[in-house]
Formats: sequence, C-alpha cells, structure tokens
Amino acid sequence: MFSPSTMIKDLDQLREKKPLVTNITNYVVTNSTANALLAIGASPIMTHAVEEVEDLMNISSSLVINLGTVARTYLEAMPAAWAAANKRGVPVVLDPVGAGASRVRTEAPASMLSKYQPAIVRGNASEIMTLAGESGEAKGVDSTMGADAAELAAKALAGVHKCTVVVSGEVDVVTDGERVVRVAGGSDMMPQVTGLGCTASALCGAFAAVSGSFLEAAVHAMAAMNVAGEIAAEQAKGPGSLQLHFYDALYSMGRDDIEKRMRIEG
Amino acid sequence: MFSPSTMIKDLDQLREKKPLVTNITNYVVTNSTANALLAIGASPIMTHAVEEVEDLMNISSSLVINLGTVARTYLEAMPAAWAAANKRGVPVVLDPVGAGASRVRTEAPASMLSKYQPAIVRGNASEIMTLAGESGEAKGVDSTMGADAAELAAKALAGVHKCTVVVSGEVDVVTDGERVVRVAGGSDMMPQVTGLGCTASALCGAFAAVSGSFLEAAVHAMAAMNVAGEIAAEQAKGPGSLQLHFYDALYSMGRDDIEKRMRIEG
Amino acid sequence: MFSPSTMIKDLDQLREKKPLVTNITNYVVTNSTANALLAIGASPIMTHAVEEVEDLMNISSSLVINLGTVARTYLEAMPAAWAAANKRGVPVVLDPVGAGASRVRTEAPASMLSKYQPAIVRGNASEIMTLAGESGEAKGVDSTMGADAAELAAKALAGVHKCTVVVSGEVDVVTDGERVVRVAGGSDMMPQVTGLGCTASALCGAFAAVSGSFLEAAVHAMAAMNVAGEIAAEQAKGPGSLQLHFYDALYSMGRDDIEKRMRIEG
Repeated sequence: MFSPSTMIKDLDQLREKKPLVTNITNYVVTNSTANALLAIGASPIMTHAVEEVEDLMNISSSLVINLGTVARTYLEAMPAAWAAANKRGVPVVLDPVGAGASRVRTEAPASMLSKYQPAIVRGNASEIMTLAGESGEAKGVDSTMGADAAELAAKALAGVHKCTVVVSGEVDVVTDGERVVRVAGGSDMMPQVTGLGCTASALCGAFAAVSGSFLEAAVHAMAAMNVAGEIAAEQAKGPGSLQLHFYDALYSMGRDDIEKRMRIEG
Repeated sequence: MFSPSTMIKDLDQLREKKPLVTNITNYVVTNSTANALLAIGASPIMTHAVEEVEDLMNISSSLVINLGTVARTYLEAMPAAWAAANKRGVPVVLDPVGAGASRVRTEAPASMLSKYQPAIVRGNASEIMTLAGESGEAKGVDSTMGADAAELAAKALAGVHKCTVVVSGEVDVVTDGERVVRVAGGSDMMPQVTGLGCTASALCGAFAAVSGSFLEAAVHAMAAMNVAGEIAAEQAKGPGSLQLHFYDALYSMGRDDIEKRMRIEG
Repeated sequence: MFSPSTMIKDLDQLREKKPLVTNITNYVVTNSTANALLAIGASPIMTHAVEEVEDLMNISSSLVINLGTVARTYLEAMPAAWAAANKRGVPVVLDPVGAGASRVRTEAPASMLSKYQPAIVRGNASEIMTLAGESGEAKGVDSTMGADAAELAAKALAGVHKCTVVVSGEVDVVTDGERVVRVAGGSDMMPQVTGLGCTASALCGAFAAVSGSFLEAAVHAMAAMNVAGEIAAEQAKGPGSLQLHFYDALYSMGRDDIEKRMRIEG
C-alpha cells in the first residue's frame, strides 16, 4: 500500500501546496523545526501565544503540539489551539516530549488526549509507554524501553484514541491500532543532534496536510527522516555536519533517492 | 548617493565600533540573529524582560523590535523598550512579522507605531501592505502580494511615520517616502532558511548605529544581505549549507566582494 | 595533577554514563547548548518551568543555571531548581550572563549566590568582577576587563562561596580560591559564535557529573572547549563553519587530539 511512488506523490504535493503548519513547540527546536519544514517544502509558523491560536487555525493545514517546553504560557496555548483545530477539522500531531520525566510532562499530554482528538501521536518508546499507561522510565528525551513492549503500547494507544501512533527508534514503528508498518534507515548519529525527534513530529504535521490518511502521512514522514538522515550521514563527520546535510537532503531529496533508500515493511 | 564606497565605509565603522544592538525578537531566530550580528561585527544582546529594557537602552546603539513571538511577556517588553529608546534617541527598527496572519500580529505593531517613532520598518510585501492599511493576506511569513502595490504601501507608510520602510522581496525596495532605492542580489534559496527576514531587520539595526541616515542604513543592510546571500548560494547544496556559508560571508565580506556584487538602483 | 590522562578518563566516563544535565538557560542558546552536550556525550534536558524543576532534580546529575534570559518565568524556575539541587546534592553551575549590563542581571545571580551553594561559577572577566563586587562594565556579553584584576576577583569569589570559579578569556583561568589553573587554546574566532560561553558553562555541568572535584571538572570542561575550538578553527572559513566543526570535534575528540592539543598550566 505504501511505496516509493506514494511517498513521491505526497512529497510533490507538499512542495506544490506549501501547507501552513502551525507549531506550538519547545524553545530548543523552534529554529531547527522551522528549517526542516521549510526545507521539505511546507510553510511553518511557530507560536505559543494563546491570543492568536484560534486565528491561526483558520489558515492552518495542520497543528503540531510538542510538550518539550512546559512553561505556563505554552500549556495555556496548547489546549486552546487543539480545541480550535478539532472544531475546524485541522489535523493535530502530538509529541509528548519527556513524558515520564516530570509529572507535568506526563499529565499535560494525557489530559489533553482525554479531551481532544489527535491525528498522530509520535514519541520514543519510553514516552509512548508512559502515555499508554505502561510503566516506563523516561531519561531525558531518550528511549530506554524495548521495542516489543513499545509496539504493544503503541497499538493500545492508537486503539483507544483512534489515531495513528509512531514509536521512533532504530526502526520506526507506525500503527493505526491494527496495521503495523516499520520504517528503517537513518543513521545512529541522529540521536546526537538535538530535536530530530521533534522534527519527525513536525514532518508528520506537514504530510498530514496532504496525505490520503494519517497512517500514510506518518509512514511518509518517517521515510523522509530516514532517507534524509541516511544521505546526510554519508557526508557527515559528526552531529554538526549531519544536521546541515540533513536540511540539504530534505530540500533536494528526489525520486531516485526515495526509490533507492526508502525501506518500509508491513 | 549610495555606492560600494559608502557601504564599505559603514561596514568598516560597524566592525570597528561593534555597536551594542538590543533585540526583542522571536524565539525562533534569537540564535541565528545573534550569530548574524556577531558575524558582521556588531555586539548583540537579546531580551524580552520588561524589567531590564530601560537599563539596556542606556548602553545600546540601536533597538530591534520583531513581532515574531507575540506572547504576553514579549508584548510587555516591546513598548517599554521603544518608549525608552525614543527618549534617549536610540534608533528603533520594527519588523512586523506575520502582520495579517492573526489579529494580535496586526494590532500590536500598528498600536506601537501610533505611539512611538521608528527609524526603519522592514517586512515582506504582505506585512507592509497590512501595516499600511491596505488589504493583504499574510500566509505564514511569506510574501504574497505584488511588488508595485507593495511599493506604494511602503511609500505611504514611510510618509505617515516619517521613517524608512523596507519591503523585502526578490528585489528589495527601500524608501523614505520620497526616494526609492532598489537592492538586488541574494539567492532564491534564501526564503528556505528560517529567519533571514529577521536577520535583515537586525542588520538594519546594526547599520542604523553607524550610518549617516536611516535610508542609508537600510540600503546598506539589504546590500549586506544580498552580497552575503549570493556568495553563500554559490557554495551551498541546500538551505542548511546556505545558512552556514551566509554567516561566513557576513564575517569575511570585503571590498572586492562588495564592489563586484553590490547592485543598487535609484 | 591535571593532565591529558585525567581529561581522557573523565571524557570516557562522560561518554559511558551519559549523565542527565538539566539546563535553565537563555532562549538564544537552548539549541546550541543541547547540541554541544549531546556531542560530547551527555544527556541534556532544557527547562524553565518552575512546575517541573523539583521532579527533574530527582533524576539529574547536574544543574546549569544561566542568566542570559531574565524574564520572570525563568527567574522563578532558577531558585526553585537550585534549592532542590542543593537539597539532593546535585552540583550546580552558575553562568551570570550579562551581570553588570542591567540591574536584574546583576542582582538575580548575586541574590541566588547569597542563598544557595554553587559548585562552579563561570563568566567572562566583566561578569566575574561584577559578581565579586568589583567595578566592572559589562558590554553585552563581552569581556572588557584586564586579566589580572579578573583573576583576583575570581579568587575572592571562589573563597567567599567555597566554589570553583572560571574566568573565560583568551586564556581561561580556573580557581578554587587557592589554586589557579590556566587553560589555553581555542581560536580568536570563537567569540564571533553566539553562546560558546554558555556552552562552556554547560560542559562544566557535564564534567561536574563525573569528575573527582569541581576544580577538575572546570579544568576539563575548559580543555574540551579549547581543544575542540582549535580543531574546528583549522577547518573553518568563518563563524558559521566554526560552529559546525566545533560540534563535530566535541563528538570525535579522542586521546590523540587531547594529548596533542591540551594546554594547561598550574
């Protein structure tokens, strides 16, 4: 069902339509997230001002809510934006950064999930396990859990919230609760660049604006991460140059790269 | 009146005096703006703390107010800083990021403009049209309006507020309400790097601290953007490497580069 | 006492243990600080949410408090985090960015120092002189004072607060109030990259999590900055490429680099 052809079609759509993706994201990655969205062809806007989120939902094609900064002003803007997005049918991507590391990072996404409808939830194994109510120890933003337990948690979470769930890891797992798709590639140097997980969530938002389904959007977003990461790693001497080449690869990635490097299963 | 020679003179001044430029700017571009100011020779300080803006105006050579983040704390600091700057004769550059995209982004700069005196206002066509009271649809931070209408709006805005107005675009338009100067160059890959518009406004602030007039400051700032962008684009394989080479070019840009690449008209 | 061997031992520890370093730092450098910590092997978490700092101190190996952004929410989180860190024995690094530039930047770190125990204080000469109660004019974040006066101030500050103090400059001075160690290297292009001082403070936090003493941690952190800066400068054409190569060097820096380039005295 998903293939290099479906990926290329969605990527072309993205570059042609340049959908406006609104991001309420953490202050560590606003710049890198905006650059990644621009590089792949989307139009990013970054905000955490509760005063404008309703207005922005009138012109946005998707909304990305990232819990990496949990200061009060951010936590005010997120539910207001999400409520407005649900009302207007704007798809919402949730990234529960650090769920499990502090109470507020665990409770805030859980509380919003109980009230609003997500299109896609993306996190590492530990964050997804935490959200799914499983035991999970979050250490910073790194994953510390096994892949199998995480996959079960992802399917459960997707089933309860009727959404697509992505567990990022060496092999990314994407599920709508029934179907499970695995996406491989990238580079083991990617976790040494801050915020590439946040970038993955933002790309889910970009593809959600153009893809036929949210499962497809998530699969294509992970494929874009892995293809670009693999291209970048071949030229990089460390995480500094990796990030630079990663943006260049998102920008220039074409049919040949995708046919050669996209690896999905399921 | 403006030439490679006037540009080189101002750039030398900038690198020698290292003027302190205070920036109240959005959290997407604080890092890239500071890096651009350092690379060209200025001394940046970034703040949005209302508690310190008066103190900082005592030691600053210019102030840049950028509406990219419109959270409450930012909107408190901006008018306080602007009032203090006007009182002390510190030139103020206004960047109305996203004017038209949400009510607060439209009203906040308009309200401040009605009370305080700007030296330079810089935006894209859509933002300048919005501020000038013309109809204009802001889509994210991209320009969507025609160049001619934007030029008329810029002249009107400059006339009303007795300031210099810059409309960034493929060719940048700079006007003090009577004279119109066009600055060309750069690269069509520049809009794929987040915050280069914000960088342009910050460079206006840097040059405003040393130039003979605000019109001259704005023309030289746009020339610096275009010369550095052109040099960077010749070495770049995408927006990631473009940004890197852009800082390097701001840092190393010399007489030969400016004489060879500076293109102004009017 | 300190040598390439002690440095290599601590660096190996850092890369093996990946200690969680919590940073309450300014919004200019969150991204670059996180990238530097990841590149050298630590696990960064960035926050300024007072709601979660106590929770984070339960899982953190060190805390870095950086005064670069002095908005209210930041100033609320800092003392709460520091108190919790002291209670749990988590070492705290203080970076008084811009002390002397505004009252709040001078008073906030001084007030916290009077109540809580630091492990390491790191600043430029002007900031350390200001904190030590000496006269000192802070111009932005640059140092403007002589090295000798700064060294006296550093020794006095270290003596009063029973901590290690680092004065960054062309040659970095590290003292516990009695012993003085000088660390040389780096590149004179480093001040043209924003936030490398903040990175130095963050690396102090990373080494404080694994070193045998805070004096040793600070010496090794400065050595890491200088070795990586020197490697990066050999490949850089300006501050843009310097920053990129700097991350790569922190990541790949090994025994040979350290034996060849580490320069300490005292």
